[in-house]
Amino acid sequence: MVSWNNLDTLTSYKELQALKGRVNVAEVMSGENGAKRVKEYSVPMAEGLVYNYAAKEVDDTILAALAKLAEEAQLSEKYKELYNGAMMNTGEKRLVLHQLARGQQGDPVIYDGVDKREFYVSQQNKVKEFADKVHSGEITNAAGETFTTAVQIGIGGSDLGPRAIYLALENWAKTNGTLKMEAKFISNVDPDDAAAVLKSIDVSRSLFIVVSKSGTTLETLTNESFVWNALKEAGLNPSDHMLAVTSETSPLAKSSDYREAFFMDDFIGGRYSSSSAVGGAILSLAFGPEIFARILNGAAAQDATAKNEDILKNPSMLDALIGVYERNVQGYLCTAVLPYSQALSRFPAHLQQLDMESNGKCVNRFGERLNYVTGPVIFGEPGTNGQHSFYQLLHQGTNIVPLQFIGYRNSQIGMDVDIQGSTSQQKLCANVAAQIVAFACGKEDENRNKNFEGGRPSSIIIGDQVTPESIGALLAHFENKVMFQGFVWNVNSFDQEGVQLGKLLAKRVLAHDTDGALKEYSDLLNI
Amino acid sequence: MVSWNNLDTLTSYKELQALKGRVNVAEVMSGENGAKRVKEYSVPMAEGLVYNYAAKEVDDTILAALAKLAEEAQLSEKYKELYNGAMMNTGEKRLVLHQLARGQQGDPVIYDGVDKREFYVSQQNKVKEFADKVHSGEITNAAGETFTTAVQIGIGGSDLGPRAIYLALENWAKTNGTLKMEAKFISNVDPDDAAAVLKSIDVSRSLFIVVSKSGTTLETLTNESFVWNALKEAGLNPSDHMLAVTSETSPLAKSSDYREAFFMDDFIGGRYSSSSAVGGAILSLAFGPEIFARILNGAAAQDATAKNEDILKNPSMLDALIGVYERNVQGYLCTAVLPYSQALSRFPAHLQQLDMESNGKCVNRFGERLNYVTGPVIFGEPGTNGQHSFYQLLHQGTNIVPLQFIGYRNSQIGMDVDIQGSTSQQKLCANVAAQIVAFACGKEDENRNKNFEGGRPSSIIIGDQVTPESIGALLAHFENKVMFQGFVWNVNSFDQEGVQLGKLLAKRVLAHDTDGALKEYSDLLNI
Repeated sequence: MVSWNNLDTLTSYKELQALKGRVNVAEVMSGENGAKRVKEYSVPMAEGLVYNYAAKEVDDTILAALAKLAEEAQLSEKYKELYNGAMMNTGEKRLVLHQLARGQQGDPVIYDGVDKREFYVSQQNKVKEFADKVHSGEITNAAGETFTTAVQIGIGGSDLGPRAIYLALENWAKTNGTLKMEAKFISNVDPDDAAAVLKSIDVSRSLFIVVSKSGTTLETLTNESFVWNALKEAGLNPSDHMLAVTSETSPLAKSSDYREAFFMDDFIGGRYSSSSAVGGAILSLAFGPEIFARILNGAAAQDATAKNEDILKNPSMLDALIGVYERNVQGYLCTAVLPYSQALSRFPAHLQQLDMESNGKCVNRFGERLNYVTGPVIFGEPGTNGQHSFYQLLHQGTNIVPLQFIGYRNSQIGMDVDIQGSTSQQKLCANVAAQIVAFACGKEDENRNKNFEGGRPSSIIIGDQVTPESIGALLAHFENKVMFQGFVWNVNSFDQEGVQLGKLLAKRVLAHDTDGALKEYSDLLNI
Repeated sequence: MVSWNNLDTLTSYKELQALKGRVNVAEVMSGENGAKRVKEYSVPMAEGLVYNYAAKEVDDTILAALAKLAEEAQLSEKYKELYNGAMMNTGEKRLVLHQLARGQQGDPVIYDGVDKREFYVSQQNKVKEFADKVHSGEITNAAGETFTTAVQIGIGGSDLGPRAIYLALENWAKTNGTLKMEAKFISNVDPDDAAAVLKSIDVSRSLFIVVSKSGTTLETLTNESFVWNALKEAGLNPSDHMLAVTSETSPLAKSSDYREAFFMDDFIGGRYSSSSAVGGAILSLAFGPEIFARILNGAAAQDATAKNEDILKNPSMLDALIGVYERNVQGYLCTAVLPYSQALSRFPAHLQQLDMESNGKCVNRFGERLNYVTGPVIFGEPGTNGQHSFYQLLHQGTNIVPLQFIGYRNSQIGMDVDIQGSTSQQKLCANVAAQIVAFACGKEDENRNKNFEGGRPSSIIIGDQVTPESIGALLAHFENKVMFQGFVWNVNSFDQEGVQLGKLLAKRVLAHDTDGALKEYSDLLNI
């Protein structure tokens, strides 16, 4: 049986706190010792990825302390309970089964007489069958024409993860001849978002996927109506073009407004839902169901690595623990995510939701106020773009921001150009290698304006290429990192009560049921 | 004569520090007092925008202290010196003239015998003449066809600002019939960036604008060669399709590789260069030179408001000072920028560069290490999307993150739908009003998981619509805010030495001149 305790009650945490400021990254990363660390502080992930933490503020003593913390906080046991179907989402009293949607890591999970793995697989098969028929031309529009575009209507987790993965693989799929349909996304309630997408496509040859677990998300229902009107105005029968991804109990599930409905359940939260039909429908339509299956396989392989009880062989757990050391002992607030890959342009936005919505909590699993800090602020942009932007502050600002680099040896499209003896891809890789060392070691200069203090910690995940398998593994790595951190902090990483109050007040504004400051702001905005 | 002093030497700063924690936002924003604050704590900007700071942690006492700080730090005098042509960029020994590119705020600025205002206007006229000929069909490709697409090749400031403004006005221009050419952007040295753009356009009908002040930016020159090859492979004469925006002394300036070259000078830094030919060429080609002129007019009008010595009538100075209070007295590290407008989807990325590259410095203008914190970490995404993502941490996380909302009463495209008694635009506005109050006031709940502590400060900039004038004013507001904060912190906001070390080390990697950790990372990445 696992026990849930606040971090500041653990003996190992007190020992860890005593190790504050122990490692000077500039020092340990210099010379031959630096080379040794790069070789040793490296752990394989799934699908050929590697997590390298040489430039983090750790040494063998700190790693040993983190291992004790992992043990005392029962991280492995808690993960096991989770994938075996315990009610881990205590706030909403739900199981947490996003890993199960991509593989069976433990015992069968039976709920209400249903084997949940079978349920997820059945929905994947249903999506596959539908997508195959769309691609083969068996399913067409009323005029008998094939569908060319799939549009996701969803917000938050129904948007960010699937969009980030679509962008990650769009050029890979084009290059490999597996782009079946173009995907578009409508998320914001700003009417200009839906209008701009509708103006950019041929609605008569588009399928729209309405994604809302509850079937009540304001933005999504509004945008659905927006699209519905546009289809009618184009003389089309809207329900020929509409699909739903929702829970079996939602109002959308049995509506005749949809050509087909694919089901999710309450056990996969929005930000974890790329592995469910939320990601499955749009990505299977865009790339083909086989590609979506490869993404899931990559994720499941990474989930398996997270079972290792040795933190030095468990990249997600190790990454999580180093993050806790940085946050709670070293006192850093932010983490920058810096993928050296244009394909991952929106991956930081997905991680921003995943991390900040999961662990941006100030109460524990029992609703008690915590006396230590939890989830960090996450932001990032692709390199090398960021180098010409906010890296100035990262190098020479007054606060230290830990960095998470991601880099690949190969590009996706394969077009390249050799200039001054190197290709663009080599220049890209040279830059990420250079940045790690520049941040870690710095460089003294008599002109202090040109002086780099160094000591800025980073880690890097390195892979061969952004592929379906490797993006799946990357997705799962961060999901599991966030999960382990939630375990350490003793928070519920699977609810999001912080979104409720704003919704409530917005309804009052629309009902003109306001007073005080809310009324004044409403007036200023002419509502 | 102005004098430059560190913030912690100023008497008014010590007085300000004594006011730490004075205002409880949850308290002051409740009830009738909240309504009063919304009405009173509001200051007009240019072009119909309003800066409202009711939900910030200030009161009349703190505002009085900030006014004293503004006076002691000589903010107005320093701005005056700047626009009158003093050498404000002390590190690089340069004038700072981006405001002059859009209007004459003070005396004529003569440098090396050249009236710099006349120089900027002459380049605007040169761009206008060229763009008009492209639009009229006088300038065509070799086959006599009109050009339909303009592609900016630039990185950092040559990319983020112009791209953010293009996206801000693209749908406005389409709706108003002034979109002359589609604009695309190539920035990253990742070869997949250039390849994907090239695959998405008809290169034979595209003009490429190579933007590099020095003519030596690695990414830009690499991508230029990339495009050059593609044009040759398409059987075209590359120089028919290539334009340059560069300084008169750069290697690009007199090359016959370009159909036309437009000039900038050393007195406008990259992140401030949207108002120069860097923004001028691409935006004039995309929207027409008249629209670009309207953007400049909006910016110049906002620059004029920044001259007001009364901080309560100077929104940019006031915003800057409140930011200093939050950063140096209250101790907040981050600021989230949250535009409730899909058109501003990349505006936070521009502000991230503008702010973090300008003030992410730990030495003062004389190269001395500072003992107080400077520029914040900036991040953000459009609302309502962010509400379904990282707002959880903003509402219920363990750290306070000050918020900068931006909202508009009207959409750009004008397509909308009425659902449950309100339009999408009304829902969008209702949400931003609701969020300000939710963050400020919170809401008690016995279930602490659903409890909102409130006390999370924010301000909002409100306008009618994202138009050329209002986006110009918004751009200038933040430029001037950052400038005033740099004055207060006594840093040089106009250089970026923090980007140099990485460049240097990347060159060593490409030359295989590495050892230690750098060699190991290079090996891992197969360089």
